[in-house]
Amino acid sequence: MLSNPSDKYRPYPPVALEHRQWPSRQFTQAPRWCSTDLRDGNQALVNPMDTDTKRNMFKKLVAMGFKEIEVAFPSASQTDFDFVRSLIEQQLIPDHVWIQVITQSRPDLIERTLASLQGAKQAIVHLYNATAPLFRDWVFGQDKDATIELAVRGVKQIKSLCQANPGTDWVLEYSPETFCFTEMEFALQICQAVYEAWQPCAKRPLILNLPATVEVNSPNVYADQIEWFIRHFPACPHTTISVHPHNDRGTGVAAAELALLAGAQRVEGCLFGNGERTGNVDLVTLAMNFYTQGIHPGLDFSNMQEVVEWVEDCIKLPVHPRHPYAGELVFTAFSGSHQDAIKKGFAKNAGQSHWQIPYLPLDPADVGASYEAVIRVNSQSGKSGAAWLLQQNHGLQLPRNLQIHFSQQVQHHTEQSGAEMPQSALWSLFRHCYGLTSPQKLALLHYQSFSIPTGQGVKASVGLNNQTLELEGRGNGLLSAMAQAINKAFKLQIDICDYHEHTLGHQSNSRAVAYLECLTAKGKTFGVGIDTDTSRAALQALLNVVATCLAPE
Amino acid sequence: MLSNPSDKYRPYPPVALEHRQWPSRQFTQAPRWCSTDLRDGNQALVNPMDTDTKRNMFKKLVAMGFKEIEVAFPSASQTDFDFVRSLIEQQLIPDHVWIQVITQSRPDLIERTLASLQGAKQAIVHLYNATAPLFRDWVFGQDKDATIELAVRGVKQIKSLCQANPGTDWVLEYSPETFCFTEMEFALQICQAVYEAWQPCAKRPLILNLPATVEVNSPNVYADQIEWFIRHFPACPHTTISVHPHNDRGTGVAAAELALLAGAQRVEGCLFGNGERTGNVDLVTLAMNFYTQGIHPGLDFSNMQEVVEWVEDCIKLPVHPRHPYAGELVFTAFSGSHQDAIKKGFAKNAGQSHWQIPYLPLDPADVGASYEAVIRVNSQSGKSGAAWLLQQNHGLQLPRNLQIHFSQQVQHHTEQSGAEMPQSALWSLFRHCYGLTSPQKLALLHYQSFSIPTGQGVKASVGLNNQTLELEGRGNGLLSAMAQAINKAFKLQIDICDYHEHTLGHQSNSRAVAYLECLTAKGKTFGVGIDTDTSRAALQALLNVVATCLAPE
Repeated sequence: MLSNPSDKYRPYPPVALEHRQWPSRQFTQAPRWCSTDLRDGNQALVNPMDTDTKRNMFKKLVAMGFKEIEVAFPSASQTDFDFVRSLIEQQLIPDHVWIQVITQSRPDLIERTLASLQGAKQAIVHLYNATAPLFRDWVFGQDKDATIELAVRGVKQIKSLCQANPGTDWVLEYSPETFCFTEMEFALQICQAVYEAWQPCAKRPLILNLPATVEVNSPNVYADQIEWFIRHFPACPHTTISVHPHNDRGTGVAAAELALLAGAQRVEGCLFGNGERTGNVDLVTLAMNFYTQGIHPGLDFSNMQEVVEWVEDCIKLPVHPRHPYAGELVFTAFSGSHQDAIKKGFAKNAGQSHWQIPYLPLDPADVGASYEAVIRVNSQSGKSGAAWLLQQNHGLQLPRNLQIHFSQQVQHHTEQSGAEMPQSALWSLFRHCYGLTSPQKLALLHYQSFSIPTGQGVKASVGLNNQTLELEGRGNGLLSAMAQAINKAFKLQIDICDYHEHTLGHQSNSRAVAYLECLTAKGKTFGVGIDTDTSRAALQALLNVVATCLAPE
Repeated sequence: MLSNPSDKYRPYPPVALEHRQWPSRQFTQAPRWCSTDLRDGNQALVNPMDTDTKRNMFKKLVAMGFKEIEVAFPSASQTDFDFVRSLIEQQLIPDHVWIQVITQSRPDLIERTLASLQGAKQAIVHLYNATAPLFRDWVFGQDKDATIELAVRGVKQIKSLCQANPGTDWVLEYSPETFCFTEMEFALQICQAVYEAWQPCAKRPLILNLPATVEVNSPNVYADQIEWFIRHFPACPHTTISVHPHNDRGTGVAAAELALLAGAQRVEGCLFGNGERTGNVDLVTLAMNFYTQGIHPGLDFSNMQEVVEWVEDCIKLPVHPRHPYAGELVFTAFSGSHQDAIKKGFAKNAGQSHWQIPYLPLDPADVGASYEAVIRVNSQSGKSGAAWLLQQNHGLQLPRNLQIHFSQQVQHHTEQSGAEMPQSALWSLFRHCYGLTSPQKLALLHYQSFSIPTGQGVKASVGLNNQTLELEGRGNGLLSAMAQAINKAFKLQIDICDYHEHTLGHQSNSRAVAYLECLTAKGKTFGVGIDTDTSRAALQALLNVVATCLAPE
């Protein structure tokens, strides 16, 4: 058993916030996005990306719609430095895209960082230092004043280097790390000092990024912290409040959303939540959450499968089958009642502009997925799943009783096998059960039908085991005449209970499918026939019922 | 590009809630847990679990601490029915554990459901019907009154069947599906009708389960709905409010947490978030979130790796490497600055009862993980990572300059390979760089040291390429004497800049390790020696510096 955690762990204290506003707000627009895949994401990989891979990922991020991309920690390694140089020198950065690089506040590191940016049209220099008491006391042995001094010194050095390079448009980003467990008053104080030192203006904006580098509280606490900070930070048109959530408690997406409600305007994160430990916040989920609220995220995931594949290829980590919007199982319903509702939803939703399908918050087509995965059949599926698949793939519109009968055959089969039933196996089971075999056991060769005073008569040649049988019968219609002929010839007692027929396709040469439900000595028995002639389809369906009756138990 | 979603998607409206309380509350205790792994989880698998696997999972869930377990949908299939029977008949249900089964509100299904529970000591019958307008209108074509009538009829039938079987202790659970997009007033109305029909008492309690079967809003909205519901539902001691979040927006864990703050007392979910589509809420993350807040969850994940392995084996779905608390990468830091902070944190935290390590919100030992995975070395790692691993695995406490020098060798190596450097490769690189090779290039065979008026003299035999060299020198101490002897013999100019030595282990026969930093014609050069004799270790370290000087560039 786990030891008693109250001896070992204490909750981080929440912030006192009167009259909080964020829980009453709603989303009206998407935030500014900053991808840190090439930096925060990359540094968390067992095998970091090589330069070619990073360059490819940069191009894809741009194509996807990212306008701010943190690309490296140039002072940390030659590889990172060279990568920034190659983006600039090979002119790979479109005019509307800002690259961002991170540095600690040390003179030599800052100098090297700025050197890496020489010749860039525009750039965000991201300065961070540790502000949380745990870091100040244990890691750096610095008091609050020294910590502020360290940040301000860095800002001033960056500012003077920027002023010496007026050919580049500069933005400063500052992160007090880890904001979420820094004393709020101190986080405010150091950000104010940074603001004073940088003096943001239209030509030289500031981003204050408030990271939850380690997520230690429920997401409402982070939102409170952001709202508290914004309330206390004097409003300034050239300053953007940014958030950088991680996912240690599995609530990174929620933390970002609630922080945006609290007033943050920008989010840093990675595709599919890559990043140190449990990852940065997942920008794919976050963006698609906006999308399904009717707000365009400004990022393009219209071919999600392709995005999944290239990200997996770059970072060598899988996207989970249940990952929101992207996993291979997230549009799939196996349960019978879900399948039933989805099937009805598709029928009702047809022609409506507003998407409303039970159990499908997103139209799979919007991320390039097909409807094929929506319903898959195993032992947990009811009548609707199998019927849906036969309709989607073969155009069959099974009558209700046949749906039920067939679903019992499917359940028997899947319970025996313990496995999912793929579409091909389902189709082959259907054909086997209802006589659509090739060759057919009892095959209608040719028939003639003629009117009689009481209805209709039929003469038919039927093939059985290489023999040809001649049948003749009368009834109030063709089908009942054939039933009489059959009962006479085979000494059976078949009663037709239900009959449905429809065309497959919409052309005059389309084939028709006939469904027959009969009462026989074996109980309810079903047969299906398909033919270009509607009468032949119906007669063959009846013969398929007979074949079932003649088969040994 | 994605189409404009505002044409197609509308946000679900939030609930109007004045004076909300939940954002100001803090967690004080863990909720009641209900695992739905064997039902909601199982019905979402490509290949559902077979009976043996389900039975094993049931036993593990019990051992883990679950007291309420939804085990089947007995009326949906013979397999599910038989599974419930086998649990009861084989007496696999401990006295403190309640099994739960789900049913729709249809007389035949309810009858079969109750039949499956014959002979159980206690059981929860979980009745659900669709209450959301989308379902009422499109799927079932029922108005509000008919929907209430359907629920009440089911409750009354269950009640009378329960009263006919007084040998079992009964609980009714009712779920209005999907609560989160049912009109709140209607959800309240139908739950009140269910309450009236069941008339809960101490002997016959009620669970009102308010599912987000499809997650369609940010988690604060769900919390508002729960708080609204609880505020409007007359308090009753025999009624428990339960939640059942899913994860379509990636915020299932947050939704559960905020709903608990809003007053819910019970959570239904699955291990690692298995379940339809994006899954049910993940009970592992949720429970461990309580744990790291100092609140015992009442569930045991002290051997997380084992839990991961058997769940993966049962459901044939992976746990993601970044899954909170459980993924293989979640305790790992690759980045240099993180490694540095963790290393310092471990040193400072030693002996403290309260866990506080930078970047590690949970002690890996609490879930049975080792510290080995905490720091892994690749090209993103700084000096601390490699030094930490050498300390953890070999007891070496590298002086700061040697840490820096070695980290440069490591970075060069990892940038060349592009891959992570495993511990064995790191150790082998260290030995190669600082002369700890076997055999040693320049090996101290024996030495004698003698006092002279100005300090110490030394005579030493040294092996080099199968030859034995005799060295002799004088200095103010043994090391400087040896340096003089070496400089004379090899025509070198080696100056000793820094020397550290410590024992490896804490016994009198422990070996010692000596670190030497010298200035040579090649610049700063380092050597390391290990020996049971402290002087031999130091002399060998010096000889290892010499070996580096003699080596070709």
